Amino acid sequence: MKKLTALSLSFLAFQNLIAQDQPNIIVFLVDDMGLMDTSLPFLTDADGNAQRHSLNDWYRTPNMERMAEQGVRFSTFYAQSVSSPSRTSIMTGQNATRHRTTNWINSENNNKTEFGPTDWNWTGINKNTITLPQVLKGSGYKTIHVGKAHFGPIGTEGENPLNVGYDVNIAGCSIGEPGSYLGENGYGHIKGNKSRAVPGLEKYHGTDTFLSDALTLEANHEIDKAIDENKPFFLYLSHYAVHAPFNADKRFIENYQKSDKDEKTKSFATLIEGMDKSLGDLMDHLQAKGIADNTLIIFLGDNGSDAPLGDEKGHFSSSPLRGKKGSEYEGGMRVPFIVSWGAVNHTHPNQMKLSIKPGSIQSQLGTVMDLYPTILSVANVKSPQKHIIDGFDLATQLSGKINQERPNKFLMHFPHEHRGSYFTTYRDGDWKLIYYYNPEWPERPYCELYNLKSDPTEIHNYASTKSKLVRKMIADMVSQMDSEGALYPEDANGNIIRPIY
Amino acid sequence: MKKLTALSLSFLAFQNLIAQDQPNIIVFLVDDMGLMDTSLPFLTDADGNAQRHSLNDWYRTPNMERMAEQGVRFSTFYAQSVSSPSRTSIMTGQNATRHRTTNWINSENNNKTEFGPTDWNWTGINKNTITLPQVLKGSGYKTIHVGKAHFGPIGTEGENPLNVGYDVNIAGCSIGEPGSYLGENGYGHIKGNKSRAVPGLEKYHGTDTFLSDALTLEANHEIDKAIDENKPFFLYLSHYAVHAPFNADKRFIENYQKSDKDEKTKSFATLIEGMDKSLGDLMDHLQAKGIADNTLIIFLGDNGSDAPLGDEKGHFSSSPLRGKKGSEYEGGMRVPFIVSWGAVNHTHPNQMKLSIKPGSIQSQLGTVMDLYPTILSVANVKSPQKHIIDGFDLATQLSGKINQERPNKFLMHFPHEHRGSYFTTYRDGDWKLIYYYNPEWPERPYCELYNLKSDPTEIHNYASTKSKLVRKMIADMVSQMDSEGALYPEDANGNIIRPIY
Repeated sequence: MKKLTALSLSFLAFQNLIAQDQPNIIVFLVDDMGLMDTSLPFLTDADGNAQRHSLNDWYRTPNMERMAEQGVRFSTFYAQSVSSPSRTSIMTGQNATRHRTTNWINSENNNKTEFGPTDWNWTGINKNTITLPQVLKGSGYKTIHVGKAHFGPIGTEGENPLNVGYDVNIAGCSIGEPGSYLGENGYGHIKGNKSRAVPGLEKYHGTDTFLSDALTLEANHEIDKAIDENKPFFLYLSHYAVHAPFNADKRFIENYQKSDKDEKTKSFATLIEGMDKSLGDLMDHLQAKGIADNTLIIFLGDNGSDAPLGDEKGHFSSSPLRGKKGSEYEGGMRVPFIVSWGAVNHTHPNQMKLSIKPGSIQSQLGTVMDLYPTILSVANVKSPQKHIIDGFDLATQLSGKINQERPNKFLMHFPHEHRGSYFTTYRDGDWKLIYYYNPEWPERPYCELYNLKSDPTEIHNYASTKSKLVRKMIADMVSQMDSEGALYPEDANGNIIRPIY
Repeated sequence: MKKLTALSLSFLAFQNLIAQDQPNIIVFLVDDMGLMDTSLPFLTDADGNAQRHSLNDWYRTPNMERMAEQGVRFSTFYAQSVSSPSRTSIMTGQNATRHRTTNWINSENNNKTEFGPTDWNWTGINKNTITLPQVLKGSGYKTIHVGKAHFGPIGTEGENPLNVGYDVNIAGCSIGEPGSYLGENGYGHIKGNKSRAVPGLEKYHGTDTFLSDALTLEANHEIDKAIDENKPFFLYLSHYAVHAPFNADKRFIENYQKSDKDEKTKSFATLIEGMDKSLGDLMDHLQAKGIADNTLIIFLGDNGSDAPLGDEKGHFSSSPLRGKKGSEYEGGMRVPFIVSWGAVNHTHPNQMKLSIKPGSIQSQLGTVMDLYPTILSVANVKSPQKHIIDGFDLATQLSGKINQERPNKFLMHFPHEHRGSYFTTYRDGDWKLIYYYNPEWPERPYCELYNLKSDPTEIHNYASTKSKLVRKMIADMVSQMDSEGALYPEDANGNIIRPIY
């Protein structure tokens, strides 16, 4: 404290500095947003420089660009391929193999599929789960949930964010998608899918307030309250956008009118731009309130793109990457990830914990499991000892360095039937194995092997020519899965289908 | 004959009509020429119209375009993925499974690879093989071989085209590639790879006559001799071009100078253009001699492209198709195929046998096995009864119709190690199965499954999700292979590795 002079701090920042020795933390989570659904380029060339692709020229996300100018972004950030596994990993720091919510949660029933593991965690998070907001709350943070929760089905504890560590819940419940994005439709209460109506935003019903905007207004209001209460806050602003239904956000439709793309694709782009405006409004609000320099923002998507541009296996929605939401290819699991900490570096002592170089790009991989240890580290909060964490503290990587202790590995396990079915993907260095259990012919499992360095778009399958490597990678994959407690698919007689090698 | 008037025929054509009731037949075979190595588009859209791709804009083959304007071309014509199997199929009408020359013939030794079948036909064709020229010769044709023979290794009967049905042989022996294309180098005798020196063109040694040109001059001279002898001729003009070495043909280098492509790629393009000039010179010569209307020309490549543009598995050399020479993908086995019969239709009664619509495109598949039955049919010659033919008479298809009796199937068997190793591909309708024997892990064979209709570039592999179809296709594939006498790879102990399903 002695090192700081009043000259180096604005009065407001000084005021908040006195009040807090824990930084505010915001997780800005976008549903179904993939790596390419933005005008901000994340992919890099061999020298680590950002490379624009055609989708970057199609979308408009000026506020993501602004955030990236101030912060650091990751070229290679992995989520699970569908929402619930990712969200449970964010909340717990654990891989889906361990928390066992390996499929998306159906808000009405057990979403077990034909050969899916009987004991998969279809109810998601409950009161006994150790979660990020719960731990932060126990250390003095005000924990605020705004938007999509979807932590557990209807009738379970996880249905209510207040049961899993949040002090405040706005608009979150068991549903994973909104009945409507339109205030005119009451977000599903007046018109749209009523079983998926968004709760708790009654004051906007009948107005022209788009859902993304309503959530932002509410989030900013909650920030004001936390400031008034003189408490550091953890805000989990979890947009329903850009999940289906692809309602057009009319504030932005003009920007896409001239294109010859179809209406659904244009509407999707307006959803993206509306979500981006929310980010801008939030950043402006932090600035106006003088707390930007003491607020860490983490922006990310929860699974690969669901842009309505083509099928799950092709190079469409995440082009040039292959695949989209639900698939085993990179486009199914690569998401945008940006971290910023105020517009100006090093004016607040909390910022010293990280040394983020404005506009930098980190190419070492990160994953959704890393948020839990990273946020607790920044907040100076210890995780309960008994709680196993699969993620890594990103502090070194956020500071622009390579974390030498981090293996270049990512294992994603999806023992269910969905867009891509009954597979585990295992990245180790440049190689990525996709293991398909093939439950209808379990004695003939199926593998693909890609070199992500030479072939980032996953076209050249080496499985037929690199048997030794395939066997070794399956062995390593199984070893990791067993150590994490993975549940395997089951055949028609209920027998467990373990990988064969 | 009564229907024809002198007015409708030139004097020369009339003269030859009187002289012959069997048409002349030319097989213009280009070594290593794939479907996309030409300015003539072969690929079609859903309506069957030709679609240009970037490689069509790179290469220059005006004479192929001219031939196609007069004739019919096939969008989907299959060869084997390497030279010797294709050439043996052309000569015999049999699939490689049956003639068992399943790998390329090494002119010096048995080219068996580690897990390749012991009994594969590494010596190729011999005096006892029933061949196309042999049958034609027995029916009054003068059979002329000019260019690359490569029917058998050095020291075998197949080394000499005169042993396998040809009356005349110019420049053919056991070699599959020329020591040099340059007259200055004596085609390898003076400079270049002497063990692959091209025989019998001594008069051009030391001149600037490019090999493709020398072969054309010789072929035209042989045509003149056949006219003088008043005999119908079968000319097998088998260019060494465009096989490696990629010597630049300086007559055309200026056309590619401005490009920023590398020198090897430019040289390859000159080899293509030089080969195309040969086609033009040949067509001009037939016209000048007044026999164009009684001469059927069949133009084709013998395997997928070997253009030096990228690896075997990618979308480079045959772009937009995947793969190149030696590979299991379409780019490895799709070749140009054009048939024309004079510039003007129906002026010669022999032409009535076919009704070729100028500039038409046939999209039903054809294969190299079809040349034998098609040519014999056009020539009104019967194949020996005991000789099994796997190909189909193309008469219906050349006339622009669909042959309803022809199954939409193509089976290619490659039980050797090469660029693509130990595989069988089996196309049945829109689906294409690739079965990899995986001899280093034989209990885990590997399959890929593509839908060539929705995914002609073979990116979306359905093998992991369509087990039933994969099993059925393997069963059908094995049934066909066994009926054709296919030899399977052998494991390290010499045990036969049969497909498992």
